[in-house]
Amino acid sequence: MSMRLSAYPTFGAVPRDIGVDLALVIDTLRMTSVAATAFSNGCARMLAVETIEEARTLADRYGALAGGERGGLRVDGFDLGNSPLEYTARRVSGRSIVVTTTNGTRAVARVKCARNVWLASLLNADAVAERIRESGFADVALVCAGTAGRFSMEDALTAGAIASRLGDEREADDFTLACKILYRALARDIRGAMAGSEHAGRLLRLGFAGDLDYCAREGTLKSVPALGGDGWFTSA
Amino acid sequence: MSMRLSAYPTFGAVPRDIGVDLALVIDTLRMTSVAATAFSNGCARMLAVETIEEARTLADRYGALAGGERGGLRVDGFDLGNSPLEYTARRVSGRSIVVTTTNGTRAVARVKCARNVWLASLLNADAVAERIRESGFADVALVCAGTAGRFSMEDALTAGAIASRLGDEREADDFTLACKILYRALARDIRGAMAGSEHAGRLLRLGFAGDLDYCAREGTLKSVPALGGDGWFTSA
Repeated sequence: MSMRLSAYPTFGAVPRDIGVDLALVIDTLRMTSVAATAFSNGCARMLAVETIEEARTLADRYGALAGGERGGLRVDGFDLGNSPLEYTARRVSGRSIVVTTTNGTRAVARVKCARNVWLASLLNADAVAERIRESGFADVALVCAGTAGRFSMEDALTAGAIASRLGDEREADDFTLACKILYRALARDIRGAMAGSEHAGRLLRLGFAGDLDYCAREGTLKSVPALGGDGWFTSA
Repeated sequence: MSMRLSAYPTFGAVPRDIGVDLALVIDTLRMTSVAATAFSNGCARMLAVETIEEARTLADRYGALAGGERGGLRVDGFDLGNSPLEYTARRVSGRSIVVTTTNGTRAVARVKCARNVWLASLLNADAVAERIRESGFADVALVCAGTAGRFSMEDALTAGAIASRLGDEREADDFTLACKILYRALARDIRGAMAGSEHAGRLLRLGFAGDLDYCAREGTLKSVPALGGDGWFTSA
């Protein structure tokens, strides 16, 4: 059976009632890279919430770590920021984590009508594509979180990296095709292409060059964070 | 002075209060290709309205031709549809035209806070770029109309064609850069790239293959439809 791929340049472009088999949320810089890293380092479960207050309350309730950012920086009083490099095995192994970020967690909220929600980044692009190929899903939405409601190059590159790994025989909409073309045009230097993006510029000014190097490493992690019926992400 | 380019994958992504010096509305298939053609063939002025009823009423009031489409086809009782090939000198020379289309006219309505609004297509890409270079504008928004609220490949290609003609020294946001990369990747066969798009597929099924061939002809027309203070487009 053919699989239909559709892609969205920002989460705001996704219909609120989107009922696809799978919504793949992509926030390459940095929420979904954080998630892939945390699960690869033994995190037990992760909850994505929209407000700082919710994150504080729920982290308290569940004895979880609180993580995330506002303006790219760790929220006051949180255990962790939004740099994947902080999510080491020492910090996160066996722990529950509640995160809130500006773009990624809002994108997750937007696709709540999808039958499955997974978190994708360049880091776990191979693992995600392999899992999709095995899935038998009929329709998959590639949801670029974007930045502040606008298109982000790095999310389109990740969507293109994954769509390219799924092969050309899939039915694909125009934006999926555009992401594949962008990825192929820039694949020789993904780190460089990302560094030229607007969002990366802001991270570099905030001192997160190491995050950029790290998040550009394609296919290095095996975890595929998937949303469960209880609202928490886990990775099989 | 540097010119800042920002691009939008759909008109719905444009902030309602966008106050740029110029909003370039792009609806390659087919409203802005129609406009470039009509003015090149001597049309006196064109009004873009959102509803069929408005188009009928205003065409009557101004002794204008009524043009446009719903579902790609001419509206019942209208003088003209949305095929640029209908907008011949014989039909439109010296005439006023009121048009309503599904995507393009709504995109025009969206950017009403811009200080200037021009209509761009592949047909007039050279003329538009030349006029922008001469303008001294500080910020230009490339507004892809999209199709039914979704990204359209052909509009991104037109945005890329124009941005590429403006040169690499401009400040450009991520989506402008993406459009330029898409254009460069596909420039050798624009007609073929457009034919593979979703919107073109619908037009081909409706029998408009000739429109597709025609709208892919880059830089063949000199007109640059510009919105005046009275709400009508004219071309200097």
